[in-house]
Amino acid sequence: MNIPKDPNYKTRVADSFAAQSAMTSMNISLILVEPGQIVMQLEKTDAFLQQQGFLHGGVITSGLDSACGFAALSLAAPGFEVLTIEFKTSFLAPGRAKLIRFEGQVIKSGRRISFCEASAYENDGDNKKMIAKMSTSLAMVEMPAGWQPLPKR
Amino acid sequence: MNIPKDPNYKTRVADSFAAQSAMTSMNISLILVEPGQIVMQLEKTDAFLQQQGFLHGGVITSGLDSACGFAALSLAAPGFEVLTIEFKTSFLAPGRAKLIRFEGQVIKSGRRISFCEASAYENDGDNKKMIAKMSTSLAMVEMPAGWQPLPKR
Amino acid sequence: MNIPKDPNYKTRVADSFAAQSAMTSMNISLILVEPGQIVMQLEKTDAFLQQQGFLHGGVITSGLDSACGFAALSLAAPGFEVLTIEFKTSFLAPGRAKLIRFEGQVIKSGRRISFCEASAYENDGDNKKMIAKMSTSLAMVEMPAGWQPLPKR
Amino acid sequence: MNIPKDPNYKTRVADSFAAQSAMTSMNISLILVEPGQIVMQLEKTDAFLQQQGFLHGGVITSGLDSACGFAALSLAAPGFEVLTIEFKTSFLAPGRAKLIRFEGQVIKSGRRISFCEASAYENDGDNKKMIAKMSTSLAMVEMPAGWQPLPKR
Repeated sequence: MNIPKDPNYKTRVADSFAAQSAMTSMNISLILVEPGQIVMQLEKTDAFLQQQGFLHGGVITSGLDSACGFAALSLAAPGFEVLTIEFKTSFLAPGRAKLIRFEGQVIKSGRRISFCEASAYENDGDNKKMIAKMSTSLAMVEMPAGWQPLPKR
Repeated sequence: MNIPKDPNYKTRVADSFAAQSAMTSMNISLILVEPGQIVMQLEKTDAFLQQQGFLHGGVITSGLDSACGFAALSLAAPGFEVLTIEFKTSFLAPGRAKLIRFEGQVIKSGRRISFCEASAYENDGDNKKMIAKMSTSLAMVEMPAGWQPLPKR
Repeated sequence: MNIPKDPNYKTRVADSFAAQSAMTSMNISLILVEPGQIVMQLEKTDAFLQQQGFLHGGVITSGLDSACGFAALSLAAPGFEVLTIEFKTSFLAPGRAKLIRFEGQVIKSGRRISFCEASAYENDGDNKKMIAKMSTSLAMVEMPAGWQPLPKR
Repeated sequence: MNIPKDPNYKTRVADSFAAQSAMTSMNISLILVEPGQIVMQLEKTDAFLQQQGFLHGGVITSGLDSACGFAALSLAAPGFEVLTIEFKTSFLAPGRAKLIRFEGQVIKSGRRISFCEASAYENDGDNKKMIAKMSTSLAMVEMPAGWQPLPKR
């Protein structure tokens, strides 16, 4: 349904993801890049918990934010970058599982502003259980010619 | 103005902060605890950046979320814990500085639900510059007798 | 999928909708009530515009808020009412059409807190076009015995 | 502190307010216009209630949204209009009083995007009581030459 404006969108997203040292530090991997859709996965460690032993909400939010940003980036014109204007995260259930899956998608791709959503899931027995949901707006920003993301961390 | 319901609120907040391994991992320290008010500080490293070299929005949000949660906890009755229902973060400017300061405060303390706000600041020359602002609602949850936060990480 | 806790949920939602004078004043009708799902419709008049001639965002939000609230109410236990804790509305496109459709649904029904979403659509030629989307959290509140919504307005 | 880019900002805001038929229909008046700050007031009638007899949250939100939009407009360059990207409203207490006061202010005025906040207050005996708070982002949009708001409603 979504037609990427940059035929090179998969490499662009992969390079940008690799440049986000926060993703590596939080143990988050990029799983899937489709036009307007991103899947990422976090493998939980003891390093990012809150006081009750659940995954810290800010860490779940980091995964959701990147999933949304890369979903928007996958539809961006060449030379444009994505900056989050704001996001809201709703916490439906605590993050308990070893693996958390983030699914981000564009709900409206605009020339100047895009709107995205992302959900965080864990497996609860055999079921996929939604533990958090993000709604976000992002600015599409034209970058100086030759701009590149940071090198891989 | 705010009267803490638990005379032991400073220790409670400090113990709960110490139990959040996410804070240590992200290089965030607790600076000040007053009734309904929290100050924390992040010292930026290369480990939590996004692709343009700014502090990742999810990391800024982690600090804001904890500042709000501990502000709410400082006014909680003994035996009650705090769980974030949802938050929204607005990003006013990229996080560039070495030190980011988080200031959280309760705007309404309720029996079942509290509302808090937090701002993230950096120093821009001599000026304090707001780079992000959070608005959040939190559930006040009665814990089983004898419940304790995780031991210090 | 959703099992209503109150077999009388359709009448309850209809009575509560009828008690909301704001809905009548804004020309909003209740179209469909299913467990956890609500459809409402607004017929645009000149009385609720903003300065560019589009439907005022607060009016779109009123429809979305009620759609969410009644979706939550349709799954509430007898004797419980619904109060909005907070909502966020994202505005994807201006409201231009004569008819706006609101579709609300519960994404998590809780004992104390429920999470809902609603979308506003208009017809753009033959297509259903999303113009706004809400994400909200709602408190489920036990009412005094014998409590009733206001009589029909 | 805020320097208006358009010396004619007071008239501009007043004309734009007069063009919003939604404000008249909801019984909301413009009280004060300063650079980056707006005060408005709603006089409650029976026409905009929810099922418990409180002011409908969407109506409170309409006042907050307009207060934010006009605060942003008061700092806009000539020829630019304001469009709400998204807002979040937190409901601290039900709206019970006859008069509700809306105070909006710009927290960051940008060339393309501005961030604003607004609070709704009622008098509770002698005290000003906050009943709702909005956080919003707005797009600053250049209009075609000669564009005017709708004539007064």
